[in-house]
Amino acid sequence: MTVPETVALDDETGALVIIDQTKLPGEMKLLRLTKQEDIWRAIYTLQVRGAPAIGVAAAIGLYLAAKEIKCDDFGEFYARFKSAKDYLASARPTAVNLFWALDRMDGAALENAHKPIAEIKTLLRAEAAAIIEEDISVCKSIGEHGLGLIKDGQGILTYCNAGRFAAVKYGTALAPIYLGHERGYNFKIYTCETRPLLQGARLTAFELCEKGIDTTLICDNMVSQIMKSGRVQAVFTGCDRVAANGDACNKIGTSGVAVLAKHYGIPFYVCAPVSTIDKATPNGDAITIEERPGEEVTDMWYKNRMAPEGVKIYNSAFDVTCHELITAIVTERGVLYPPYSDSIRIL
Amino acid sequence: MTVPETVALDDETGALVIIDQTKLPGEMKLLRLTKQEDIWRAIYTLQVRGAPAIGVAAAIGLYLAAKEIKCDDFGEFYARFKSAKDYLASARPTAVNLFWALDRMDGAALENAHKPIAEIKTLLRAEAAAIIEEDISVCKSIGEHGLGLIKDGQGILTYCNAGRFAAVKYGTALAPIYLGHERGYNFKIYTCETRPLLQGARLTAFELCEKGIDTTLICDNMVSQIMKSGRVQAVFTGCDRVAANGDACNKIGTSGVAVLAKHYGIPFYVCAPVSTIDKATPNGDAITIEERPGEEVTDMWYKNRMAPEGVKIYNSAFDVTCHELITAIVTERGVLYPPYSDSIRIL
Repeated sequence: MTVPETVALDDETGALVIIDQTKLPGEMKLLRLTKQEDIWRAIYTLQVRGAPAIGVAAAIGLYLAAKEIKCDDFGEFYARFKSAKDYLASARPTAVNLFWALDRMDGAALENAHKPIAEIKTLLRAEAAAIIEEDISVCKSIGEHGLGLIKDGQGILTYCNAGRFAAVKYGTALAPIYLGHERGYNFKIYTCETRPLLQGARLTAFELCEKGIDTTLICDNMVSQIMKSGRVQAVFTGCDRVAANGDACNKIGTSGVAVLAKHYGIPFYVCAPVSTIDKATPNGDAITIEERPGEEVTDMWYKNRMAPEGVKIYNSAFDVTCHELITAIVTERGVLYPPYSDSIRIL
Repeated sequence: MTVPETVALDDETGALVIIDQTKLPGEMKLLRLTKQEDIWRAIYTLQVRGAPAIGVAAAIGLYLAAKEIKCDDFGEFYARFKSAKDYLASARPTAVNLFWALDRMDGAALENAHKPIAEIKTLLRAEAAAIIEEDISVCKSIGEHGLGLIKDGQGILTYCNAGRFAAVKYGTALAPIYLGHERGYNFKIYTCETRPLLQGARLTAFELCEKGIDTTLICDNMVSQIMKSGRVQAVFTGCDRVAANGDACNKIGTSGVAVLAKHYGIPFYVCAPVSTIDKATPNGDAITIEERPGEEVTDMWYKNRMAPEGVKIYNSAFDVTCHELITAIVTERGVLYPPYSDSIRIL
């Protein structure tokens, strides 16, 4: 099976093309999205997910919205452009890459306000294309820097999916694994299934197995036992937003893995493009955490409802890992070490 | 819906009667088991589970086996009795209550070797009945001692199911909750779903909601966030075996909850009958940990397989919580505190 890119622009049909990640691992289904409502829904329902990937999807989506605006006046164009931007930004609240990518597109429009609308559209397409290309090169660089932190033969634990399905290619947390694999290293990867939406079981296990990488799936509650037994020498996770003090918001459960890593003396690395670092957010408490429907926990993947009627459900999609638990943050510009308030400020 | 007892002996039909826990929460189905193969399978497949409950089920099962042995010679009787005992003991390796209950039945047979076989059968029935009655009173006492450790209005986190479905009635870890509830206390209970078999979502949430107790279901990876947010003032878990040094083996994931509780400064209590304490096991490393089929993780509860073909699966059913992480062990004889090697030795 040839695997297409996670997120791409198809100029011919004027469509955002994504792999429908809710169908994996059973089915590799491509979606060609042209309507803004469909693009919004694809982000909201996690048909496309992962901080870098939703940034890219939103950038392409906003370009497609701009392309459809029929007018010659910039004021009129920009009002509709801004409305489309705000709409896409409302799809999910936590990953900063969504806002970062939309802001970049916004900047490209405003900087060229004096140019003809047709030219602005061309420049917006170029900006979206640049975001795509940069995502690929940024992930490669994260891979290089991350690979310097681990050794051939080690056991690496990863969480949720921060691989190729979370970006255009390569991913963040899995980039060092892929790079090492290309160079003949044999890592033993442990992937947490990541309830409730099982991105680790469905996506990470899928993409690693496809590459022939030694991969063991564990339930999220097995991390302590796996670490205690000496199987894990390092943890790599992705990230949805890093605050100015180094607090890192990522998929719910990440902070627990970090506490366990500290307890068992295992280094805990967060892999994140610089675009994921939000200097305007002072610390983790200032990050909006998305709450999602309880049905994701009680019956989304089950034949029958697996919890009694009437029980309350807590379903935060993310949690914040305190900067004190993070050994290092791996970016495309190099590895950041504590104190993060310093290493992030001078970035 | 009237809820029957988790495990019971029906003399009329000569059957072990259990609630089929694999059908909950959707269906309350009673099983009447008379064949040894069916009783073994009920324990192996977790139709009946929970350390105290499988001890009781095995005791009843062994009595039913004894009742069917047609002979007058004790040597001949005992050879077949011992064979039935060993068969039932092979159903699951970790929970010591299974072996403890079978050993008690064995002792009752051997002590009365000089008596007529018919009388021995009557005494074995009495021993099984005593194990049932003691289980109920032991759980009540654990409830009293545990209740002394918490306050009205507190948030209590529990793990897997150590409630009425894990014993004849009341349970161990949930006994303090039920007792407090009867006395008008309002606890806020957080129950971890407990992958892969979801005993927390299916059983604990069910039995607590049935009693009208404020219950919130969380995924196992949400414990860190729930604790960090200040919602939890104490953790109560059950236990499958306590070693002589206080190491406690319980459902996979328990040790991770204990590490998190320590990190966030929350007391972690293990509730266990004295029969769960195995002085012959020096520490957690000496406990046999059951490994179960990978399909429990990949597709047991799902509409479709949720992991790719070819991925390895790790599926240990239990882990060991180091005694250093345990604030206290709540037994029917009182609360044991560290150093456990002392408090357990003099028990």
